[in-house]
Parts: sequence; structure tokens; C-alpha cells
Amino acid sequence: MQLRHVLLPLARSANQLYLESKRTKSSAYTLERLQIMFIGILGTGQVAQTLARALSDAGHQISLGSRDPQSKTFEFPVLPLAEAVATADVVINATLGSGSLETLTSIGADAFAGKIVLDVANANTPAFDLLYPNSSLGEQLQAALPGAKIVKTMNTASMAVITDPSALGPSSVFVSGEDAGAKAIATSILTDLGWPADSVVDLGDIRSARGVEHYFLLFAALMQAKRSPMFNIQVTQ
Amino acid sequence: MQLRHVLLPLARSANQLYLESKRTKSSAYTLERLQIMFIGILGTGQVAQTLARALSDAGHQISLGSRDPQSKTFEFPVLPLAEAVATADVVINATLGSGSLETLTSIGADAFAGKIVLDVANANTPAFDLLYPNSSLGEQLQAALPGAKIVKTMNTASMAVITDPSALGPSSVFVSGEDAGAKAIATSILTDLGWPADSVVDLGDIRSARGVEHYFLLFAALMQAKRSPMFNIQVTQ
Repeated sequence: MQLRHVLLPLARSANQLYLESKRTKSSAYTLERLQIMFIGILGTGQVAQTLARALSDAGHQISLGSRDPQSKTFEFPVLPLAEAVATADVVINATLGSGSLETLTSIGADAFAGKIVLDVANANTPAFDLLYPNSSLGEQLQAALPGAKIVKTMNTASMAVITDPSALGPSSVFVSGEDAGAKAIATSILTDLGWPADSVVDLGDIRSARGVEHYFLLFAALMQAKRSPMFNIQVTQ
Repeated sequence: MQLRHVLLPLARSANQLYLESKRTKSSAYTLERLQIMFIGILGTGQVAQTLARALSDAGHQISLGSRDPQSKTFEFPVLPLAEAVATADVVINATLGSGSLETLTSIGADAFAGKIVLDVANANTPAFDLLYPNSSLGEQLQAALPGAKIVKTMNTASMAVITDPSALGPSSVFVSGEDAGAKAIATSILTDLGWPADSVVDLGDIRSARGVEHYFLLFAALMQAKRSPMFNIQVTQ
């Protein structure tokens, strides 16, 4: 409780500093130069935290977005969801997949106009059934947020592997989306995390998100068989 | 037409010879010794023919099973479905996945009592939607034919790759099923086709068939992106 009294004001100060820096950021920090990006990660769970740490280590400016930001104290600023979207060059959906569609649409489609959104979630029930069989969360989000540039990616391995691909032998990671520029940004972020450029497989448009989302059931079966999340697949030809 | 008049009687003679050999086959040809197996492949399409050729080359005795055997002339005996099951040590379901459940149940559950059945089919619509989302053909077949020992396998790559794994770099193939002995037979058949034993991933029980069947949507997306079926995935760790 005491710790909380110390950390909460600190986190709020960090938020302030972050927003100051965002407002005054130099035009040198542009997407075009693929340098420092302001990345707003929606969610504050393990996936969001692991990504935040890795992308911060890669040099990016990170904020987390939460429905209840006052209650969260992390090493990164925690903003209300709409603010995390508004201040971000790139948004990452790291909310629980089963609630992502509701959470993101509650922010409002206008908020996402022109935004690059990396959707890394898997939408399943606790019993590992798919919530969107023969479709995908990626497609649902693109339909609900037509102004957004949704890229499905990073959902085919554990975040421990996604943020440290060298932990395994060579393996593959996928991008699906309508916008080639957004997929290029996604690929550059993957490169920042240590993925060789030739390990990134462009599957095509957002419809192909159903491929990587349906793979979740094979991922789950493999994790159960191996009793470990430290594996991935490599596309070989 | 002339050719057909020559070939049909020849095929019928081959059928006769095959059935004679089956009736009198030596007890040396037993499953236990993993030598020559009598393999009944249900289906006469491209998948069935490719498998028949490869398994015959590996030394096995092959028959194909068809609803309409009289109309088919192949280099292998074509039997009525029930006869192809009755005379086989190992049955392979290579019928079109969308009709497999109906076709196999039409043969009768009793016919499959104790039979090892390798189910290699993918059950999807022409638009590549899964017919059994959040389930699988493998599970449906096991439920409909409770006496059978269903093993889901060979459905995650094109038959050109399944029957010639050395065409690619190292990659993986999967087995799912309730019966460990049946999975061992499946693995030995995969080995006969050229799969190194350590490339065969045992995913567990028949429920895990949904993993490899849902993977079909990623397979389809990859095939579309690569404009080729000559690829596979390798599980890396």
C-alpha cells in the first residue's frame, strides 16, 4: 500500500513528461525515417508488458492504454485508451482477444482514422475454441474500424519468442493486411525485435489473418504436446 | 474406347489376383514386423493416386476403394469401398474431405472395428471454409466409427511433399490419435515415404486433429502467397 502511494504519483509524472515530449517531439522522429516511433500498446497484461519492454529496449517510446489507467503502475506511462491511440504513431492491440473487438470499437472508429494498428491478439474461449471460426479478429477489426490500417502479426508464437527470436533456431513470423506501407512498418518493428527481414512472410490481405488465427489451434496442440511455449514454425521450401 | 476394353478386364484380373494373394497371404506379412502392409486407400482422386504410387514404390500392397469400382482403371486394383476396408491392414481415407464422413459411415461402423485408419483429408468448402470449425473431421470420424483407430496425419502439406519430403529442406509432419500402436504404424508408413523419424510430431489424442485441420487455412494462405504448393512448416525449438 505504501509502495503504491509512492509509485502512483511517479507514474503520473511520467505520463506528464511523456505527453510533453509527445507534444514537442521533433519532426526528425518521423515514420518515414523508421527511427523512434511512439507506440501505443492497448492492454496492460503480460503480452502488453513483454512487448513494451522489448520495444522500449529497441529504442521506441512506449505508452500503454488501459480502461482504468489510474489503477495501473508500470515502468511505462499508462494512458486512457483513446489517449494511447491519439498519441501513437503505431497502435498495438495487445488486449485480451476475446474482448478486443468490443474494446477497440468502444474507442470509436474516428479515433483510428489513418492509424496503423498491429493486431497481435488471438480471439478464443478459455477452452481454446476460436471466437471467429472461418473469419478472424483481424478481419473483424478492419471491418469495424475501416479507417485503420490493420496488420495482423505476432500472434503465432509466444511473446517470449516474438520478442527474442534468437532464442530458437530460424523460424517465421507473418504479416497480413490491406496496406503495404503499414505492413512495411510492421516488418521494421519485427526487425527491431531481432527478426531477420527474410523471416517475415507477407501472407497478403487482411483475409489471410484467418490463416494465422486458425493456426492458434495447432499452436495450442503443440504447446500441450511439448509442455512448453518455446517453439515456433519455420516455412521451408 | 478400345483401350478401355483392354484395360478393364486386365484390371479385373488384377483384382482377382490381389484378392487371391490376400486370402492366402503368409503370416510372415504381419503388422508386427512392419514389412509389407496391405493398404486400402479409399478414394481414386489425385491424392489417392499419388499416395498409392508412393506406398507401392515403398513395397506395400495397394488397393483403391471406390463407390463405383467398375468404372475405374488404374495400375492398382480398384475394389468396392467395403472390400477395400475388409482386405486392408491399414485403411487410408483419401476421399474428398467434404464427403468423407458420409462415405465412411456408409460403409458401416462394424467394417472398421479394430482397423487402423489414416485420415489424410481436409474437410472444407470450395471457398476454403472449414466444415468442422472448432472440431475436426478426424474427431468426427472417430466418434462415428468408435471401433476404428483413427490417426490424423499427412494433411498439412501437398501430397507431392508428403510423398517426397526430401524435395524440401527439413520439415515436420504430424500424427494425432487415441491409439499409440496405430500412431506407430502411421509413423512407420511416414518413414517408408522418406520422413526421418524425428520429423514426425506426435500431437497427442484425436482432439489435436483440430490443430492440423485448422492449420489448413494457413496452408491455403501460404499457397496463395507463394503461388506454389511446394512448401511445408518445420517446428523449431
